[in-house]
Amino acid sequence: MAVGFIGRTSLVSVRSEVSDITFEDIQAAAQRLKGAAHRTPIATSRSLNRQAGAALFCKCENLQRVGAFKFRGAFNMINQLSEAQRQRGVVAFSSGNHAQAVALVAKLLALPAVIVMPHDSPAVKLKATRGYGAEVVLYDRHRDNREVIAKKLSDERGLTLVPPFDHPQIIAGQGTVALELLTDLPDLDVLVAPIGGGGLISGCSIAAHAMLPALRIVGVEPESANDTSLSLEKGLIVSTPLSPSIADGLLTPAPGKLTFPIMQRHVESVALVTDDEIAEAVRFLLLRMKLLVEPSGAAAVAALMAGKVPNVQGKKIGVVLSGGNVDPTPLARILTSGAGNFKDQIR
Amino acid sequence: MAVGFIGRTSLVSVRSEVSDITFEDIQAAAQRLKGAAHRTPIATSRSLNRQAGAALFCKCENLQRVGAFKFRGAFNMINQLSEAQRQRGVVAFSSGNHAQAVALVAKLLALPAVIVMPHDSPAVKLKATRGYGAEVVLYDRHRDNREVIAKKLSDERGLTLVPPFDHPQIIAGQGTVALELLTDLPDLDVLVAPIGGGGLISGCSIAAHAMLPALRIVGVEPESANDTSLSLEKGLIVSTPLSPSIADGLLTPAPGKLTFPIMQRHVESVALVTDDEIAEAVRFLLLRMKLLVEPSGAAAVAALMAGKVPNVQGKKIGVVLSGGNVDPTPLARILTSGAGNFKDQIR
Repeated sequence: MAVGFIGRTSLVSVRSEVSDITFEDIQAAAQRLKGAAHRTPIATSRSLNRQAGAALFCKCENLQRVGAFKFRGAFNMINQLSEAQRQRGVVAFSSGNHAQAVALVAKLLALPAVIVMPHDSPAVKLKATRGYGAEVVLYDRHRDNREVIAKKLSDERGLTLVPPFDHPQIIAGQGTVALELLTDLPDLDVLVAPIGGGGLISGCSIAAHAMLPALRIVGVEPESANDTSLSLEKGLIVSTPLSPSIADGLLTPAPGKLTFPIMQRHVESVALVTDDEIAEAVRFLLLRMKLLVEPSGAAAVAALMAGKVPNVQGKKIGVVLSGGNVDPTPLARILTSGAGNFKDQIR
Repeated sequence: MAVGFIGRTSLVSVRSEVSDITFEDIQAAAQRLKGAAHRTPIATSRSLNRQAGAALFCKCENLQRVGAFKFRGAFNMINQLSEAQRQRGVVAFSSGNHAQAVALVAKLLALPAVIVMPHDSPAVKLKATRGYGAEVVLYDRHRDNREVIAKKLSDERGLTLVPPFDHPQIIAGQGTVALELLTDLPDLDVLVAPIGGGGLISGCSIAAHAMLPALRIVGVEPESANDTSLSLEKGLIVSTPLSPSIADGLLTPAPGKLTFPIMQRHVESVALVTDDEIAEAVRFLLLRMKLLVEPSGAAAVAALMAGKVPNVQGKKIGVVLSGGNVDPTPLARILTSGAGNFKDQIR
């Protein structure tokens, strides 16, 4: 498995926007999600704790509906649409979990959905999205601009665009992950979550610091998609070219205009992990903890297993397992590439 | 994947023994297990229910310590040994989960353990057993008699033999699975569990029928290891030759002298499943429910998904996912052999 590399960086003069997302917005989102989303369980493992040198509490968003935390944000936003907006429907662009989330929410709320997806999306995700009754519009990842396609559909058909992360209602929905985690475990020392566009960690940060101001919040990115890490370092939104990683869900070129300032305020640091470290975490979670977590969803555990989160010895750490959707073929490849490579077989 | 075949059958005149295992024994086992075993969660899935046409409640013994229900019986028995017996230690013969269970329990209770295992056991299981600090004695599956080897070790070194299923304290320990399940869900209609030697379903039957006499109890065997099915049909213990199945944990040649009469009394019928049906269930549990369940552990779900358990439409069904230990290479093979073969992608 190739180790991810850091791509060329371009500084972009995007103005970040100050959002006014509050803890109350996240509490209201939790009310909306009641009965619709799962309150996901928290998994623990003695041997994982031994590997990480800390007590890890894994919030199982891989067991969320559609297999990822994305259901929370999508439901929170779509559920607040007006009657007229509902009748026209929604459109989303996504290569994966966000697409499925929007499709399922639209189905549950009985409104039309159009999903703009790359033509080379994992088969299981394309099939699932269509299975939810959504209309799928394919685009070429290398040639087309998905945002332009989605915007055109939105203009032509009056569809409401449901963005993957940079929207207050999406961010508030994702924040319910931390709200639940800290309600169950009010004395955590650190929260570790993966960063793609930053929607998950932004929402979680607002909820978590409202409940527990001293909590340390650490993000995790693949080395090959370190846009947020660089942006935080430079103090402005930096865009990085996309380079491949097994953590396909974390491959965003830049943090969002809304999510970036939230992360600036709340996130202590960002750990960078390699594909090998992510694959090791996927295998550990699967073979030892019996949980299927997709590579993007295992990034936070990977950082902790690899000792890349500073100052965690003996601490209580909340970790978000953000999703569990992976095609069988890449999963089989991860299984056979480094199997039996564990340092410790005792639990 | 080859469909299992029914081997030649030999009628054996083994006298079955009437056991006096009571519900109180199982309640006492539950007390002993408190704080040592996990109280495993119950998983549900809308799409699994749709496939099975019933409401399934999956008792996740794949999340039990050592990754299988076997921990319960081993702990219950070994914990009752006298001080003198503890000092000499224990011996067990097993190709897998029972070995790991005895090894871990011995480690927890700080007593010596010798495990007699086939030399071609899955690498991950050999490694785990040794990792628990047990002494492993290997034997040739085709040439040696493991029971003779274990008996010799027991005689020479005064070790107490911990049998894999045919012992009252082992059976009582396994019965705590049903005790927990019916405590959480007192209105189940049917309980479905896999049958190897019958220890799990026997213990569960005694507990379940004490708590809920009207409960229907259905066993599941691979077609290629249908010894209990044939034995129940003929009314006496029948031995079948071992033929391969991906459900390696269910490959016992005959039901036990203790377990057989218990199954005669409590088990309504035994469903037979093919390797293909088992593989389909493993994939469904993994890719859709994000749970790693080993082939033997997925047999009960396989029977329900394949419509092989009669009269379940609209019923509430308890299903035991009995274990989750599988080597990465065979798991990768299961993943790639029939991937994307699902009838229904909507959840």
